[in-house]
Amino acid sequence: MMKSPATHSPGSAIEGRLSTGHVEPGFESVRNALDAMLLSDPRFSAQVTAIWRGRTVVDLTGGPDLATDSVTGVFSATKGVAATVIGLLLEQGLFDLDEPMATYWPEFAAEGKGEITVRQVLSHRAGLVGVDDGFAVEEFIDSARAAARLAAMAPQWQPGATHGYHALTIGILMEELVRRLTGRSLQEVYETEIRAPREIDFYLGFPESEEPRFREVLPPAPTPAEAAELSARASSTDGMQALAFNVLHSELPPAGGEMGPNSRRMRASGFAAIDGIGSARGLAGLYQAILGGPGGEPLLSKSTMEQMSREQSVGPDRVLVLPTSFAIVYMKPNPRLDFASYRAFGHDGAGGVLAFADPVHDLAFGYVPMPMQRPGGADPKGIELSRLIRASIRRLQQ
Amino acid sequence: MMKSPATHSPGSAIEGRLSTGHVEPGFESVRNALDAMLLSDPRFSAQVTAIWRGRTVVDLTGGPDLATDSVTGVFSATKGVAATVIGLLLEQGLFDLDEPMATYWPEFAAEGKGEITVRQVLSHRAGLVGVDDGFAVEEFIDSARAAARLAAMAPQWQPGATHGYHALTIGILMEELVRRLTGRSLQEVYETEIRAPREIDFYLGFPESEEPRFREVLPPAPTPAEAAELSARASSTDGMQALAFNVLHSELPPAGGEMGPNSRRMRASGFAAIDGIGSARGLAGLYQAILGGPGGEPLLSKSTMEQMSREQSVGPDRVLVLPTSFAIVYMKPNPRLDFASYRAFGHDGAGGVLAFADPVHDLAFGYVPMPMQRPGGADPKGIELSRLIRASIRRLQQ
Amino acid sequence: MMKSPATHSPGSAIEGRLSTGHVEPGFESVRNALDAMLLSDPRFSAQVTAIWRGRTVVDLTGGPDLATDSVTGVFSATKGVAATVIGLLLEQGLFDLDEPMATYWPEFAAEGKGEITVRQVLSHRAGLVGVDDGFAVEEFIDSARAAARLAAMAPQWQPGATHGYHALTIGILMEELVRRLTGRSLQEVYETEIRAPREIDFYLGFPESEEPRFREVLPPAPTPAEAAELSARASSTDGMQALAFNVLHSELPPAGGEMGPNSRRMRASGFAAIDGIGSARGLAGLYQAILGGPGGEPLLSKSTMEQMSREQSVGPDRVLVLPTSFAIVYMKPNPRLDFASYRAFGHDGAGGVLAFADPVHDLAFGYVPMPMQRPGGADPKGIELSRLIRASIRRLQQ
Repeated sequence: MMKSPATHSPGSAIEGRLSTGHVEPGFESVRNALDAMLLSDPRFSAQVTAIWRGRTVVDLTGGPDLATDSVTGVFSATKGVAATVIGLLLEQGLFDLDEPMATYWPEFAAEGKGEITVRQVLSHRAGLVGVDDGFAVEEFIDSARAAARLAAMAPQWQPGATHGYHALTIGILMEELVRRLTGRSLQEVYETEIRAPREIDFYLGFPESEEPRFREVLPPAPTPAEAAELSARASSTDGMQALAFNVLHSELPPAGGEMGPNSRRMRASGFAAIDGIGSARGLAGLYQAILGGPGGEPLLSKSTMEQMSREQSVGPDRVLVLPTSFAIVYMKPNPRLDFASYRAFGHDGAGGVLAFADPVHDLAFGYVPMPMQRPGGADPKGIELSRLIRASIRRLQQ
Repeated sequence: MMKSPATHSPGSAIEGRLSTGHVEPGFESVRNALDAMLLSDPRFSAQVTAIWRGRTVVDLTGGPDLATDSVTGVFSATKGVAATVIGLLLEQGLFDLDEPMATYWPEFAAEGKGEITVRQVLSHRAGLVGVDDGFAVEEFIDSARAAARLAAMAPQWQPGATHGYHALTIGILMEELVRRLTGRSLQEVYETEIRAPREIDFYLGFPESEEPRFREVLPPAPTPAEAAELSARASSTDGMQALAFNVLHSELPPAGGEMGPNSRRMRASGFAAIDGIGSARGLAGLYQAILGGPGGEPLLSKSTMEQMSREQSVGPDRVLVLPTSFAIVYMKPNPRLDFASYRAFGHDGAGGVLAFADPVHDLAFGYVPMPMQRPGGADPKGIELSRLIRASIRRLQQ
Repeated sequence: MMKSPATHSPGSAIEGRLSTGHVEPGFESVRNALDAMLLSDPRFSAQVTAIWRGRTVVDLTGGPDLATDSVTGVFSATKGVAATVIGLLLEQGLFDLDEPMATYWPEFAAEGKGEITVRQVLSHRAGLVGVDDGFAVEEFIDSARAAARLAAMAPQWQPGATHGYHALTIGILMEELVRRLTGRSLQEVYETEIRAPREIDFYLGFPESEEPRFREVLPPAPTPAEAAELSARASSTDGMQALAFNVLHSELPPAGGEMGPNSRRMRASGFAAIDGIGSARGLAGLYQAILGGPGGEPLLSKSTMEQMSREQSVGPDRVLVLPTSFAIVYMKPNPRLDFASYRAFGHDGAGGVLAFADPVHDLAFGYVPMPMQRPGGADPKGIELSRLIRASIRRLQQ
């Protein structure tokens, strides 16, 4: 008879497959759920951290491929970290969301783009999804070159007509905006003004010294049914999605290929779209820094946080086809990805990573699974863990 | 052998379950359909009234829980009645739809809302869906207090980004606008300028003297399959929908609880979002008053009716998730709720009520079912009755 | 044992059902696919032509009802041809897309339409879907009369609120704009400046002399399952779609009835919405003329082509209900109709016709099936042939 995770005896075969770490009283359901996930799939690993009212109430790791101090590539969850740099510059009064982008970046006015606002650019509305002949990897690393190409382009849809996930170009656009506003790189501003002072375990520009802790992102292991479904809905190689993912006339490699965080030079660059490296603790720590809390000034004032997290783009996404919701760069919960309250803001990543701040609950959350989970984007298991955490908070507050 | 409704003999057991009232020649299919609905579900009651070219061509009641002169709570169908007050003030030239709301309500300009127009507010586009800590019931009754809170808020989405059903706050916003424009309450304007002169059997502010005719709204009686489906798609308690229905951190009570029309003080207040009381005759009479007809000047000029009924917000609804279509407060038919012609305007209610005016057919329609029907909003049976009425008209005109 | 199309022996019974014409080396898969389509349905006929880098690489005809030199009605694929006239006038500097339509057509300003831009009108956003009492056939032929009625109307939705396929009125609106800008008819500009100099086998205003080559559009032959599905989703006769197709209170006749290209006087008029006549060669030739190529100046400059083909309206269509994507009149590929690359522009037609230019591949494509295929709009077989052609090009370029 199989013992329940809550009552297993030390030393059993099952124990080796359960999570380690701690949960505060009232959050036991989170550990139970994670343990059930680990038991049902021996290849599954995960880190999950939740900080409620400034206190770490959940901090668990389990599975064969992630240790407590492991860090890995989080793909697009990187965007939520980079967005926080943008928020910091907004807080500092360096720009206005409703100014034309060309105010700060004059070359951007080319080809009728003179009136496109920073708000539109940063909420996936500008229609600068990619370039016809693709970007070279070097252009992601030295993104001023890529930015010059975007500045020279005509938009791919009439600005304002729709929104669509600028999967890679949003990173280029954020990096150029920060350079224009500060003369420094987004990565440098992040490191000096956000990460280092708080010792957040999340890097834009992963140092060589931390490499021993790095775990390669493992490609997904779809079930045969999932593989068949994926193959059936394989998208065209010359459509808007192929353009956005820089894979025109080819296929997206499963773990991002040479553009992705498994490439040492990409994670060294910390490209703001997809190449941040960190842990669940690091992601939760970043969002906790935004919220502030006991003994910590919030990184963003309430007003800046409100401006950054207000929903800007909602509905069917021209690139991803699915409905998406975006604030200023940050992803918002929506009925398809119902990961937190209506005030929450964060980002998911291709492999299943999910991280957010939720002002309604005063909650910061980070979740990192391994290998890459299916379907792409926020792993349903991470959303379920978030749901259990919020239900625990609700019970504790009654 | 079961007899068909059309040929039943007086005094039979079936007769007691059939509708009473009358239909004009050519509309017999409507009675047959309603009788079939009544026979197939002994718990089902309904009133249906249709006025074509100013003549009552269908006026039927049936089932155990509604009499011919019963009145009950119609939930959001109230909004279509309240919208008619707004239309009257537009007709009187008291405001312009394209003016900022703050022109008439200066406090509304707070938190960057200075440019939000009356048109946006009244078509569910302003992003003022609810307040973080919920409204107290008293704030719906004395809605100036609730309005002050909305005026002070930052919007929940970038104005213009999307539309989403302001299930309760649209009532607060309409009431405040009427107060600002006239110095009187929306309920008082309705009573003196619309209801009383025409003896319309629909009340915003239900008088004590009419209480004997009031029937409580009965909660829905879902089949096990429906119950399972409802439970499966239970929405989060901290999402935009929970915010809109003022049920953050809890569940929506089945008949609206203390906010709903089963509460004597709420129906006495006649809160413009959900607490109107009336009958199918009253609803049809209200929409007939708008259209005008033999011996009656229309309440709204053709131009005002066009402005009020023009489609403003179309597509996936940020709050309800389903596609919705709204004119100025009024609901418009759409492919999901195909209740009348493209020129029609009206509103449904949570329990299944449906009422509208249809200028293409010169038709006013009211339908009130009991208990609350599933799924929420316009009852498919009411839509089917509308379809049969319009088909009858088409045949009579050939 | 059935022989494969590639190896059939001359004179066999199968041969008579295979395509004739030619494919260049590398494009054999296109012929094989078309032959398989022809063999699987003896009632199916088709023409398909593809021009790559100015060279005709596919030119095939097969089936009982279309010969190599046949021409037929292409319904809405006509709109892509008429759009090219609009592009020519834009190239000539005769108008600006962002000017109000009323700048060129003062009467259009009536009923609050003074600020609706040419861009909005030509991307199905103006809300002028039809007229309450329908257009007479004569008003399509002498469309200045129909245009005067549209100019006098209030829009059916708030301009900008949504987009919806102006199935017939877009033709009226294009024709009136050309008259106002040039004093000539759209058909005359097309004939003298586009068709005649290039001997394109596509006519707006089909000459009597070419009648012997004309094949009537045959109504669809749905399978019983398709017929049942069609009947189940029969739309209302008083909704926005019935308005758009000019069939209020009635049903759309299967091949367009007296409005459609099977009517001699309609194809003689060449009404710009649905009554152009031509072949797959003609359609491919038209789009090839836009792209230009060896020995031919492009009809539109790169900048004009970009302006005309940029996506303007994306998402759920208020009239067709399905998601649609439009540039300036031209239809764009979208995930539902994934017919070419993100830069492509063209149009489909009710019977299944598909034609486009694709600047990414330097490809012009025309496909004409017979009888009308199901479901309406671009035939999935045409999309599959386009996919094979683009895959062939990709292989040849490697």
